[in-house]
Amino acid sequence: VFYAEDFTVGRRFPTGEATVTVEAILAFARQWDPLPMHTDLKAAERGRFAGLIASGLHTISIATRLSVDAVVGDSAIVVGRGIQTIQLRKPVRPEARLRGSILVIEQRFVDAERAVIVWRNELIDQDDDLVLAMVVDCVIGRRPVGVPSYSD
Amino acid sequence: VFYAEDFTVGRRFPTGEATVTVEAILAFARQWDPLPMHTDLKAAERGRFAGLIASGLHTISIATRLSVDAVVGDSAIVVGRGIQTIQLRKPVRPEARLRGSILVIEQRFVDAERAVIVWRNELIDQDDDLVLAMVVDCVIGRRPVGVPSYSD
Repeated sequence: VFYAEDFTVGRRFPTGEATVTVEAILAFARQWDPLPMHTDLKAAERGRFAGLIASGLHTISIATRLSVDAVVGDSAIVVGRGIQTIQLRKPVRPEARLRGSILVIEQRFVDAERAVIVWRNELIDQDDDLVLAMVVDCVIGRRPVGVPSYSD
Repeated sequence: VFYAEDFTVGRRFPTGEATVTVEAILAFARQWDPLPMHTDLKAAERGRFAGLIASGLHTISIATRLSVDAVVGDSAIVVGRGIQTIQLRKPVRPEARLRGSILVIEQRFVDAERAVIVWRNELIDQDDDLVLAMVVDCVIGRRPVGVPSYSD
């Protein structure tokens, strides 16, 4: 388990990879962001991006899932407090291969039990282009006395 | 269709309402944010919130869907550029009834065809408590010459 003490400023955690299928783009957008550029192949072809692009919310969801699988799901997370900023830097098109990382940018111990941890979650695509950058605020529990750290 | 000219600073657009079921909380979180506080009723009961709470990403998705249905889907939207900030102010529990609004906070004409529009998207629950506030940046097309405005 990763405790607040493990999220030292500058530490970077890599995540796994996800491939975005056209079916996944359509299914996500039909439920949460039903705009033609995300839900309608023909309309998207004629549109400004000359092809289907994923909802930004879908990209954010993929980044979150990758970070949960790699780090957050194995951490003493108390709660996510919010997101400071999200930049959608490049449209995500069908068959994009995305991989992420979490870079710790703030570690602030609040009391004996908890810390606020701020990290920058990035997604890079198959061309090594930055697709998404978001800065996330979490509250994470401190390591209980007597529990050894990962690096011990 | 709402064009950039219609998003005047201070204008507020109400959205419809959504009720969040326990099944929806579990289904969303299992796919995108699989932490026990969102996916496991028993673990959530024992946890810090003494009950299941929706993933923040689920709440953001509901806010987005309501705003698409009410306004964005009927606008000359070009693209969402990103989100400046997201505050998760109150946990969303099963059977929460959420309704939203979009308050325009910036309208910046970029060229003859487009404007950057910034709005604050809020969700309020059945107790009139603020659940979510997020500030969203979009590019929206200007009204073509000869097309009358909504208010004409």
